[in-house]
Amino acid sequence: MKSAVIAMPNNEPLADDLADLAGLERVEAIVRHFPDGESHVRVEESVAGRHTLIACTLDRPDDKLVPLLLLAAAVREAGALSVGLVAPYLPYMRQDRRFHPGETISARHVAAWISQQVNWLLTVDPHLHRITDLSQVYSVPARVVHAADGVADWIRAHISSPLLVGPDEESVQWVSEVALRAGAPFVVLTKTRHGDRDVEVSVPHVERWRSHTPVLVDDVVSTARTMMEIVVQLRRTDLPPPVCVAIHPVFAGSAFADLRAAGAGDIVSCDTIRHPSNRISLTAAIAARVVELISDAGSGRR
Amino acid sequence: MKSAVIAMPNNEPLADDLADLAGLERVEAIVRHFPDGESHVRVEESVAGRHTLIACTLDRPDDKLVPLLLLAAAVREAGALSVGLVAPYLPYMRQDRRFHPGETISARHVAAWISQQVNWLLTVDPHLHRITDLSQVYSVPARVVHAADGVADWIRAHISSPLLVGPDEESVQWVSEVALRAGAPFVVLTKTRHGDRDVEVSVPHVERWRSHTPVLVDDVVSTARTMMEIVVQLRRTDLPPPVCVAIHPVFAGSAFADLRAAGAGDIVSCDTIRHPSNRISLTAAIAARVVELISDAGSGRR
Repeated sequence: MKSAVIAMPNNEPLADDLADLAGLERVEAIVRHFPDGESHVRVEESVAGRHTLIACTLDRPDDKLVPLLLLAAAVREAGALSVGLVAPYLPYMRQDRRFHPGETISARHVAAWISQQVNWLLTVDPHLHRITDLSQVYSVPARVVHAADGVADWIRAHISSPLLVGPDEESVQWVSEVALRAGAPFVVLTKTRHGDRDVEVSVPHVERWRSHTPVLVDDVVSTARTMMEIVVQLRRTDLPPPVCVAIHPVFAGSAFADLRAAGAGDIVSCDTIRHPSNRISLTAAIAARVVELISDAGSGRR
Repeated sequence: MKSAVIAMPNNEPLADDLADLAGLERVEAIVRHFPDGESHVRVEESVAGRHTLIACTLDRPDDKLVPLLLLAAAVREAGALSVGLVAPYLPYMRQDRRFHPGETISARHVAAWISQQVNWLLTVDPHLHRITDLSQVYSVPARVVHAADGVADWIRAHISSPLLVGPDEESVQWVSEVALRAGAPFVVLTKTRHGDRDVEVSVPHVERWRSHTPVLVDDVVSTARTMMEIVVQLRRTDLPPPVCVAIHPVFAGSAFADLRAAGAGDIVSCDTIRHPSNRISLTAAIAARVVELISDAGSGRR
């Protein structure tokens, strides 16, 4: 019996693609709100005896988590052999310590809630910092698809003489890997954060790269303040307008328009969160890992 | 050391009143969203070694549950002796069985999530049907304040010759109790539900009560369709415009205006959910139970 894939609302294209690429059957579910704002979920076709995965990226997560967790429970209770979650964007990875007394490590709690309801999880490049591996917070297998290959391929195909620019030390992991695969040089800047929307950036001497197009790569682009600062500083040099690449295009509020207004050249993103800037598809890479995970779940290996 | 009370956003008046009436100290907490939509919670004052309760009514619950559960975790991790939840409106009590294959009993899951994070719970008249007692779904002590006294007092003070009218069989529990305490006669109608917004109501012969003002009492008023149907049918009789009383004024969308337009007389509600119709305060009754629960938590009795 074919394994099944169910889409949470707005994740239908991902579920359709996974069905095609990983040989899954699309199973329909109702996920809606009652008039009083409570969620109602219902799996509409049989998942009994089948490995079943739910496609649900988790940007702006608070009002998605309750229906997602209820749907995962419904799938399990309907007799699915296993319940997997494909969440290309995994939220709540930033509060990975108590920065101030009275806070809680939300990354741990959200991971615990998800771990209670699913058998495995697949995501794309989670924002890892003090939590260095998802297994530190997820008690179920949590696998990662890397965006580096897809991003490098896009850069090689579209930018002649790229110079990879990482916004901060945390980005070294992305930028060095992408640069290596794209066969391009890279520099990493440093930033000091004074608050959610207040970031100070130090730019090294990039003038030596006059013949190159700067390409900024960051994992999560939310307010885009960091990218904007760098764009503004790079526009003061003789370099061409920088190309901005977001692995996870959260783009809070007016961030996308603001980034363009700050002087960015092309702004492109991976399709982990649906956004008009999506130009780099990671679905094939995700589908390949899904096939492995279902095979592992089937053989009892996790 | 005084016990503490913390308000979730929009629950400050309840927390203030509980502080005054139950002798608690108001402790401040930050509960806000990061620009990317994730919640950030922080207890701003010490709760170490103190019984602490969180005031958070839970209408429109999906985007309130995540920050509430995170705040409860933060309070516990900050060393509180116990964490209580005062939720005058308790959601997710309607999906108390699998009405269709593929559904899940959301009442059980939501209760489990809350039970993991708090030591006790206090609410007002939860919507009980197939789940006949909160202890069937909550693994922590879940206590109930009844609205009947407050509602009966209001009716006695404001309506001469009331006739209590319950919208359906489920309401017998409210209506008979309120009628008894208000010293008024009552009738209960029957309804057939065809969908969220499609309800058919059978009205018995109420003409015998010509000299009475009909008073409709229901526990949860969401779309208000049930009340509207009864109002429409009652307006076809010689009785005065019916007074509508909601224990829990959810009033989804335009329900409040629609109910008025349908011909309702006065529309009043208990203050379990903040709404312009709030006329019956249950805060003193809640505060009295809070004092008992903190005393029980302190003595190790639960």
